[in-house]
Order: sequence, then C-alpha cells, then structure tokens
Amino acid sequence: MTTTVRSSSPFLSTFPGRYYYDPAIFQEEQEHIFGKMWFYVGRADALSSHGSYRVVTVASESIIVMRDKEGQLHAFFNVCRHRGARLCNQESGQLKGSIQCKYHAWTYALDGRLIGAPNVMSDEQFDRLAYGLLPVALHIWEGLIFLNLAENPQPFEAQLNDPRVQQFGDISPYDRYQIGRLKVGKSITYEVQANWKLIIENTLECYHCGPMHPELCELIPLYRTGKVFADEDFSAGVMLGEQVEAFTVTGKASRPPLPGLLPEDTRRYYGLLFLPNMFINLLSDHVVVDTFQPMGPERTVVISDWLFDPDVMARPDFDPSDAVDLLDLVNRQDWVVCELTQKSMASRAYRNGGNYAPDEHHIRGFVEYVLEKLRH
Amino acid sequence: MTTTVRSSSPFLSTFPGRYYYDPAIFQEEQEHIFGKMWFYVGRADALSSHGSYRVVTVASESIIVMRDKEGQLHAFFNVCRHRGARLCNQESGQLKGSIQCKYHAWTYALDGRLIGAPNVMSDEQFDRLAYGLLPVALHIWEGLIFLNLAENPQPFEAQLNDPRVQQFGDISPYDRYQIGRLKVGKSITYEVQANWKLIIENTLECYHCGPMHPELCELIPLYRTGKVFADEDFSAGVMLGEQVEAFTVTGKASRPPLPGLLPEDTRRYYGLLFLPNMFINLLSDHVVVDTFQPMGPERTVVISDWLFDPDVMARPDFDPSDAVDLLDLVNRQDWVVCELTQKSMASRAYRNGGNYAPDEHHIRGFVEYVLEKLRH
Amino acid sequence: MTTTVRSSSPFLSTFPGRYYYDPAIFQEEQEHIFGKMWFYVGRADALSSHGSYRVVTVASESIIVMRDKEGQLHAFFNVCRHRGARLCNQESGQLKGSIQCKYHAWTYALDGRLIGAPNVMSDEQFDRLAYGLLPVALHIWEGLIFLNLAENPQPFEAQLNDPRVQQFGDISPYDRYQIGRLKVGKSITYEVQANWKLIIENTLECYHCGPMHPELCELIPLYRTGKVFADEDFSAGVMLGEQVEAFTVTGKASRPPLPGLLPEDTRRYYGLLFLPNMFINLLSDHVVVDTFQPMGPERTVVISDWLFDPDVMARPDFDPSDAVDLLDLVNRQDWVVCELTQKSMASRAYRNGGNYAPDEHHIRGFVEYVLEKLRH
Repeated sequence: MTTTVRSSSPFLSTFPGRYYYDPAIFQEEQEHIFGKMWFYVGRADALSSHGSYRVVTVASESIIVMRDKEGQLHAFFNVCRHRGARLCNQESGQLKGSIQCKYHAWTYALDGRLIGAPNVMSDEQFDRLAYGLLPVALHIWEGLIFLNLAENPQPFEAQLNDPRVQQFGDISPYDRYQIGRLKVGKSITYEVQANWKLIIENTLECYHCGPMHPELCELIPLYRTGKVFADEDFSAGVMLGEQVEAFTVTGKASRPPLPGLLPEDTRRYYGLLFLPNMFINLLSDHVVVDTFQPMGPERTVVISDWLFDPDVMARPDFDPSDAVDLLDLVNRQDWVVCELTQKSMASRAYRNGGNYAPDEHHIRGFVEYVLEKLRH
Repeated sequence: MTTTVRSSSPFLSTFPGRYYYDPAIFQEEQEHIFGKMWFYVGRADALSSHGSYRVVTVASESIIVMRDKEGQLHAFFNVCRHRGARLCNQESGQLKGSIQCKYHAWTYALDGRLIGAPNVMSDEQFDRLAYGLLPVALHIWEGLIFLNLAENPQPFEAQLNDPRVQQFGDISPYDRYQIGRLKVGKSITYEVQANWKLIIENTLECYHCGPMHPELCELIPLYRTGKVFADEDFSAGVMLGEQVEAFTVTGKASRPPLPGLLPEDTRRYYGLLFLPNMFINLLSDHVVVDTFQPMGPERTVVISDWLFDPDVMARPDFDPSDAVDLLDLVNRQDWVVCELTQKSMASRAYRNGGNYAPDEHHIRGFVEYVLEKLRH
Repeated sequence: MTTTVRSSSPFLSTFPGRYYYDPAIFQEEQEHIFGKMWFYVGRADALSSHGSYRVVTVASESIIVMRDKEGQLHAFFNVCRHRGARLCNQESGQLKGSIQCKYHAWTYALDGRLIGAPNVMSDEQFDRLAYGLLPVALHIWEGLIFLNLAENPQPFEAQLNDPRVQQFGDISPYDRYQIGRLKVGKSITYEVQANWKLIIENTLECYHCGPMHPELCELIPLYRTGKVFADEDFSAGVMLGEQVEAFTVTGKASRPPLPGLLPEDTRRYYGLLFLPNMFINLLSDHVVVDTFQPMGPERTVVISDWLFDPDVMARPDFDPSDAVDLLDLVNRQDWVVCELTQKSMASRAYRNGGNYAPDEHHIRGFVEYVLEKLRH
C-alpha cells in the first residue's frame, strides 16, 4: 500500500491507525495524559455531607473522593497502606467518621491520617504519619471536581488557560452560567466501542453535522454547512435558527433562561472542550457536561449530565425530557459513526491514517497536542 | 523433555506445537499467506445484479465485493478514504448506484471512484482520482471469486498450477463438473476451536478415516485401509464401493449424474485442496466446496456449500438432505478430533511436534509449503 | 510516588504489586514452581479399581492419572504420541484395559506402553517402546497423590522436609491422623479472583482473624489476638476455647474423635501449609485438605475436601454439615479480602508492594522462598 503524498493535497493527516487500538499507546496515554493532567471526575455537590464518598477512576486507578468533618474534599488512592486491600468497594456511600480496611482493620480518618492499626499503633518505632492514605491532588472549579495523579501537578489554571486548550473553545462565557449552582436533572451513561480520541475528534468538527444530525441542524442551521469550526472563531458561540426558541427537540422553550446570562447568550449554543476528558455545552436554559472515561484502547465510557437551575427543578411540573432527548439523540448518532470508524483503524488501508478535510483542519491541533504529551 | 531422534524412526515430524497457537505466527500467516495468496471468498452468482454487494474477510481485512452497472465485479477495502469509517456494516445487500459513508457523506461509484465529498470536491487542488476506494485484486475461476490483497499479486494460474499445490490433488477433472453453473442447495457454517492448519492436515490424510468415519468407509471401502493418500496418485479419484450408487447417507442415488461427466466420474470421489483456504469434493450428482476462514490462532470458521444442478434444484421434489447429511456428519466427526488435537498443542509433550505415520508422510509437504511462505 | 524507606520502619515488604498480576511472572511460576515441585492432585482412593482414571491439571498441563491391572498408579501427559490429540476428554472415568486415541486409533496399555498403531506396528524399523505415553513422576504420601513434571524430580521427602517448608508448619502430627484411611464426606470448589500467592499469604497469618473471622475466634480465642503465627511455635497447634468441644459451627462435638490421636490432639487445631499448593487442617473428628490451583495471574481455583472416619460415615445418621459450614464460612470470608487485595495490585500505590505488620513478619519467608525458586 503506498501512502498518498499529502504535500500536494488539501488534507492534513489524522493519527496513524495504530494510535486508536494499540494497547501500548493506550498505556502511554494513561501515564502521560490521564496520569498527569487534571481530570474531571464529578460534581462537588454530589458529596453533600461529611463522610460522603464516591469512588472514581483516573488513569485506571481507583480513587476515593470524600468530604471530611470540616467540609473539605479530599482524594486518596483506594488502597490500604498495609497489604493493599481496596478500601471502598461501592461506587458511593456514607462513612461514619473513619474508613476501615476489611482485612486487618487498619483505620483512617476522613482526612487520610492512619488512626488505628491493631498491634502496631503502640509501637514506638512506628511513624504513623508515614502510613496515611496516599493523597491525590484535587481542585474545584465552578463546582466541578478535578483530580491530578502527578506528584507535582501543574497548577489547574495553567491547564485551563493552555493556549492549545483554548484553541478548542473559549472559557469566557463560563462564569455567567454558574455551573456550580446548577443541579443534575438527568444523567446518562454510554458505552462506546471506540478509542477516546475518535470521540474527541468527533466533538471537534461539525463537517459531519449535516449528514449525521438533521435534528440538530434544524436548531442550528449553520451546522448544515459544516463550516462552523473552520473559521476558528469560537468565542461567540453559534446562533440558534430564527424560529428556534430553545435547544430542545421541539425547538420551543419550556423553561426560563438561566439567571445572569447576557441577552446574546439566550439564543446561542457554546460547545467547549476541556482536554483531556470533558466537553461542556452551554444553552439558554440548561448546561450539559460530557465526561469521557477511556476504559481500554477500543472502549470509552461517556457520561452526560444535564444541569438545570435548582429553582426550576423544584417546580412540581419540572420535566427535562425535551432538552435531554435532543442531545441524547445526537450522542447516539455520534457513537454509531465513532464505532464504525474504530472498526477500520487496524486495516492496512488506515496504517498511515486518514485525511482531515479543509473544514476539519483545526482538529490537527488535537493530534499535535497528544503527540506532544506522549513525546512522539 | 527430550526429543525423540527421528532419523532412525519411520516418522516425519509435524509442526512444533507453537505453530498451532502462537498469535505471532498467526500474524505472520495473515501477512505472508492470507495477505499474499489468492483467497476464495464466495460464488460470483451470489452477486446477481448491479449494486449487489457482500462484505467478506480476508486476512482480518473487511472487503466489499460488488457488481457495478456494467456487470463487472470489484473488490475494495471497506474503509472510507476520508476518516476511515467502515462503509458497509451489513454482510450483504443492495446499493442504489453508489456507496456513501455515513459519517461525512463522501460518496463512491460502484467502481470505486470518489464522486462526492461535501466542501472538498470543488477544490481545484483536490485530485479526486487519488481518493477512490482502495482496490483489491479479484479473479473469477469456475464461477468462484478469489481475492488477493497483495500490491502486485502473482497471476492466479501460477497459484493454481503451483506444483506444490498440485501435490495435494489434480485439477484435471474440474472443468467437467462446471462448478460455476451449479447452484448452492445448502450451506452450513461451522465454528471449529482449532488452528486452520490442523483442519488442512485433517483433509490431507485418510489414516483417520477407518477409526473416525465408519459411514464414509461404507461408501468408499478403500478408506478403511488408510492407504489412500499414501500412494500419491490422486488424479484418478477413489472408487465408491461396489454396491454403492451415490455419495449419500443411504448409498442410493436420488438425483441424475451431473451433465458432462465422463462415465468413470460417476462412481468416483475426487477431493482436492486449493491452498490456502478451499477444499472441493466432486461427486456424481453434487459438489461440495469447503472454505476455511482463520479467525484466530485457535479458531477457524468453515463454510460448506453443497452445489447441485440448477435443473434438478428446480424440481418440486428436490431434497438435498441425503447428500448434505453425509458430509455434514463427516465434518462434525473431523471437528471433534481437530479440537482434541488443538488442546494439546501448548503442552510440553508437543513442544517439538508429533509424528506423521507412514500413511501420512505426504502431509509433510504442507508443512514445508507453509514454512517456505513464512520464510522460517 | 516515593517509596517509604523501610529500614527505619517496623515493616517487612510484600512482593511488589506486579508479582500478583503480571502474566510473565505467572508463566515463570508455572515453569519453576508448579512445573518442578511435587504438586498435590487428589486422593489415591478416588481411583478405586484398575482402569479408573482422573484427568488433572499441573502447571497448565493436562495429565491422566490411572490405575493399572496390578493396582499400580501411573500418571501420563494426556497427549497422543502420534499427532497429539488429547486422549481423555472427561474429568474422570473407567477404561477397559487400554486407552485409545479417537483420531487414528493408536492404543496404549494402562501402564503407558504403545500396544496398537494401525499400519505402523508391523514396521520393523519402529521402536514402539519409544512411543509410549510420556510419564509424569508420581508419589503417594498418606494416601495423597503428588505429581512432578520435572525430568529429574527431587525426592518427595526433600520437598516435604525442606526446612523452609517446615517453617510454615510441622509434619509431626500427621501420621496420627491417618489421612489415607479417611474418606471425603464433602467437597467444595471455589473460584477466587485473586493470585494464588495472596491466598497462600492469607493462610500464613492470623492477624486478620480478629477482624475477619468472628465465628472462628469463638472456637479459638487465641486467634483474636493475631499473635498466633508471630511466635513461630507451630508444632503444638492451637487450643480450642475452654467451653468448646469441637471445631464445628455450634462448638459441640457430634462425632467421636478420630482413632489413634493423642489426648492433647483432641482439643487442638493444627494448620499446615505444604507448598506449593496444599493446606491441611487437622481437627479432632475431621481433616480438611485445601488444594490451590493457579488458573491465571488473577484467578485461582480452591478445592476443599472434608475428610471423616469411614466407620463414622457409614452410620445412617452421618451429617458433616456442622464441620463443613464452619470452614466454608471462613473460606468465603477469606476470598472476599483476597479479591479486594487483588484489585489494588496494579495500582501505582502498590508498585513497591505493601507492608507486613510485626504479627505477619514470618510470611516474608514465603516471599523469599518464591523469589529463590524464580531466581529473582
């Protein structure tokens, strides 16, 4: 198979096929991307009281996130310091003031300190401070919890403001939507049989919107052209169609706009990617946060949370389905083509990768971003 | 474990055990045997009209075989030239004049030319001829479709007439049976938990026929002796037993002989192996084509097609079961022992392989044929 | 992640995490431990008459153990010497004087000699003695069958009396219990999702008994302290509690003591590990033999056999459940924590292993024993 000479073509090349299925590359990504970058794991409001915990996965590691007696959030490796037994084996729950290993009853405070170890604690030689739970760096931004497994994590803001990340969106509208104040009205988990990078690439171009998303294009007519991301001006979002009231399956508004938005926000859609694993959709009356969890070279779990104004949610007739059904449909349409693409990645015909059309050329920035992290 | 010194024994050795389970050797076979030889994928008459297509697998590649408007057959990698999405996701179907990728609507003619690419086709820089579907070499022989993934495939006839291949049969009787004119009366797909080479070796000796196939030996008494292949004269086929009318479970003939056979053909059985993946059984009133599809080091799919004269099939009382039941029984008997053999391949006791008995010594030619292809 | 400097700590380190999940290390263990040591496979009395056979697995090898006409037990690789087919495909059964391969009818006597090979046996060049079934060394001790795959196995007694093995128990009480005379009253097979070494380590310390096994501690109050193995005097066993009559869920005795015990045996529990794959529990009225079968790096099958006096078993009201239920409960409690521990083995937090508390320090001997066998 000869490679197309691309210098004389209008195309920039994608990753070579092996980046989408090779377990060794997946392992490198786990170490150099997911093991070193701030990784979104869930909302702070899900841990409402002291002793609340959730177990999350970051770069294949099981991590406990819990709230201590002072209301402070902490994250720790879910591994007993004695013989290694997993401490919390449920997805979430409520601790009574401490966390105890089932195996030999070593006991830790909610802030991770070792406070009990039968037949050892009394030993004078024993520096118990050295045997607390191993901590993981934690940062809250807009009510969202980010973890970082690195020993010396870069500051969260450095990642957020990385010019390369900003290339994939603009954070300026965020603070107006007060994401931390909103509540989850609906959450859907998807299993996608595709490499996480195929999903990211899918979020980064709208060249597929015309063929794939007719319902979405009804709401945002500009998407039919496929030109959206090609001009690289993301900060202003995209306009809903003239007759469209809201980003719902009917196109009608059934909820008031979120408080605090600018007038121009209410008829706009902002979609912004936070590498490595989150995408935020900002709409007039709701926000959707998508989390991408790479489970294996050819498998990704996506969790979509639809967020609403808690005052609106408190109304007896609150019904999020007109908002949920739209992006849920769009999501499922996208997973179909991500999975069809995954099927070809190991083909001789994709050994040297494929081609980004001119309307997709800026995705190439993502390719370079990943290659730089992997030092390839 | 010491190896038996074979120079003083009547035995030739088989492959060492690892050839039957090592994924690396399987990979080499995919590249050097199945990726470079003509590989049988199905009958041309299964693609009856223009736009008909089938998706087949050759050396782990998904390939589309389709018939264009002029009635010409073509084979292409099932991979969009843009971002790689699999184009056809069904086993077979009917296209309406073109083939369109779901993802971004790139569109190809039935002969593979790119005829549509939104927002790209108008680009003057874009040499659309360079972005047609990647073709796979295709050859029709006796109505059977063979594909070859090599960039510069050897001529089909060179493979057919390879003296080494002829060692495993003789093609002279073929043209009399007019296989392309016959039709499939019954097709059975088997999943065998064994390496493809164990199945090939099973077809290459009749030393096992006495112990394994009593019903078959009723029809062909010579098979009881196990001497069939040992004398290396295959061209004349083997005679049915004196009281046997036809190759059926009852031994009775229920269909007329195929037209055009020689008188001596009607009471003979010819079994011929076409390396790497087909075996043809020629009988007086039907033909059986077995296809071997290596799916993994320890898993092979076998498809057996029973072919009959279309004039006979058109009769209202046509019933293929007396023919089908016989080889179906023999097939199942063979899969049992192939699977029992597979179970020992990784044993210390088989590290240096096993022994071909004198009645099997010519199978050793197959071993050498494979080793030569793999350059081992 | 920095490693705790252990020289100034009261802890000895466990294996690094990879020893519990790395397939390459598992493979080395299969070769250097399970492929070279005497491995317990079952009771001799299970093969009651000539022609009885059982198929067992040792270091991934399928081995036939059978009793010949003279009553002698033999073990052979379950692999035909001709083309390698597995000979016996059932877990156990009864042979009629010989064992015949399904594929080409090669036939072996119960002592392994090749006694039939169609079309070969008459060949003068054929040294049939060289093609008998490949034997595996077999030793009977106390009615228990041990196999050894090594070409030149060390004497069984050398393994039994290895001072390192004795560190994990003392064989002196054994002969009093006459294990070979007892019969299996109940057998339970467990699937444990944990490396075999985690299970061995679990048997080697009672630091976990207090938190994990309250019912067991009712019977043996000393176990609550966790100090049992720390003082390294195993030969005397441990005493049952003052009010405890027998090692049953009720603490009541429902069977007479086994004949031949010393008075002090009847209120004692002896637990002894026979590396690499057996643990024996000696009680006043029964014996429990646990066998560990490593199936993969993260999966072990455990078989527990409860043995009783055959005279007691012959009584119409014989009911083993008060004995069975106790260790069955303890077993299941242990598998829970072994599986929780397995889950952390690949964590960054366990890369350098964990810590043996002072009450567990002698398990470190097991670590060194394994490392020595693997020459690590």
